[in-house]
Amino acid sequence: MSSSPVPPRRTHDRQSQAPGYTVHKSDHLARLGKIEGQIRGISRMVTDDRYCIDVLTQITAASRALQEVALGLLDDHVRACVADAARTNPAQAEEKYTELNDTLRRALRL
Amino acid sequence: MSSSPVPPRRTHDRQSQAPGYTVHKSDHLARLGKIEGQIRGISRMVTDDRYCIDVLTQITAASRALQEVALGLLDDHVRACVADAARTNPAQAEEKYTELNDTLRRALRL
Amino acid sequence: MSSSPVPPRRTHDRQSQAPGYTVHKSDHLARLGKIEGQIRGISRMVTDDRYCIDVLTQITAASRALQEVALGLLDDHVRACVADAARTNPAQAEEKYTELNDTLRRALRL
Amino acid sequence: MSSSPVPPRRTHDRQSQAPGYTVHKSDHLARLGKIEGQIRGISRMVTDDRYCIDVLTQITAASRALQEVALGLLDDHVRACVADAARTNPAQAEEKYTELNDTLRRALRL
Repeated sequence: MSSSPVPPRRTHDRQSQAPGYTVHKSDHLARLGKIEGQIRGISRMVTDDRYCIDVLTQITAASRALQEVALGLLDDHVRACVADAARTNPAQAEEKYTELNDTLRRALRL
Repeated sequence: MSSSPVPPRRTHDRQSQAPGYTVHKSDHLARLGKIEGQIRGISRMVTDDRYCIDVLTQITAASRALQEVALGLLDDHVRACVADAARTNPAQAEEKYTELNDTLRRALRL
Repeated sequence: MSSSPVPPRRTHDRQSQAPGYTVHKSDHLARLGKIEGQIRGISRMVTDDRYCIDVLTQITAASRALQEVALGLLDDHVRACVADAARTNPAQAEEKYTELNDTLRRALRL
Repeated sequence: MSSSPVPPRRTHDRQSQAPGYTVHKSDHLARLGKIEGQIRGISRMVTDDRYCIDVLTQITAASRALQEVALGLLDDHVRACVADAARTNPAQAEEKYTELNDTLRRALRL
């Protein structure tokens, strides 16, 4: 599951619409860079035989940080892509709603 | 929250007990290395303006992989540290139960 | 937390817009009725001293069923309320996006 | 999934060990009774066409309350059943660790 392949490349350009998260792109990248550092720190803790519970505490923090990025991207997506489709393209909007729902289902682990 | 500081260093040695996850240490490290790669891949997707939903799908996969590591560490912890305290040291066992409960509370986001 | 008071009454009528979940209202009510029965069943299991793990399994099932209702309501909400605001009322749409984001934040336990 | 059947009846008596949650039984029942009321309240909100977001807020509260009961039962289970097996019956202890891990996997939605 963790090895889910990177999906076929879709950019916003190909969909001829503005990327929803462009305005917060550098924020998202900064957060992701920090999470990468958190994961590296967790690996170091395991290497150093640090106490299990302390490792788990850091995993929960990294996991929460990752969910924050997801929430930010979802917000950008709704404000840009979903709203845009709702305004201009009913058929595409239908697709967007279904896609959003599937994404939330996975995020909520249902 | 995502910036929760690395806690004061506790190793299993200091607690004079075998590290609970020693037997699976290389598994945990392999998984964490893979997750680090997943996070880097997500950053690259954002840099390349990949479609929001595809980025979110990868975040969910990385988040799930992280929870798998947590679950593995919890299992090791219960089988080694908690069980050991239950068998040999009632006072320390009390501490371990409370600590485990606090950790699960955070993992379940309560 | 579990005792969060029922918020001040807002109906869709007052907001002069169609209730987002009207079309699936009876589905949602059927699911909620079933969940109520699941909770009652869990109480009965505790009363009867049933094995902890079996009780926990039923709690997870009820919790998942509850998230399914939430997901269904979210879908209805996006397709009706959010989309409608996006199409007709930019200022109200802003409010809807923020409100949706806050709701997702709580649902994801962030 | 929400319709997962009540599993074959296992009581603690049959397993000839003290019920792990006996000491908190009335607490758990009180919480479950309250959650049942919350679910009924949510049904009423849907019946009354209350605003989707307000319904979702109450679902999140009920869901959290349910997780609190799960956490309490898990704590009781570890302190009684798991600890007892660790002290007295290595073979049964193995079973308990695996069972606990499976339960946490489901609770964490993995």
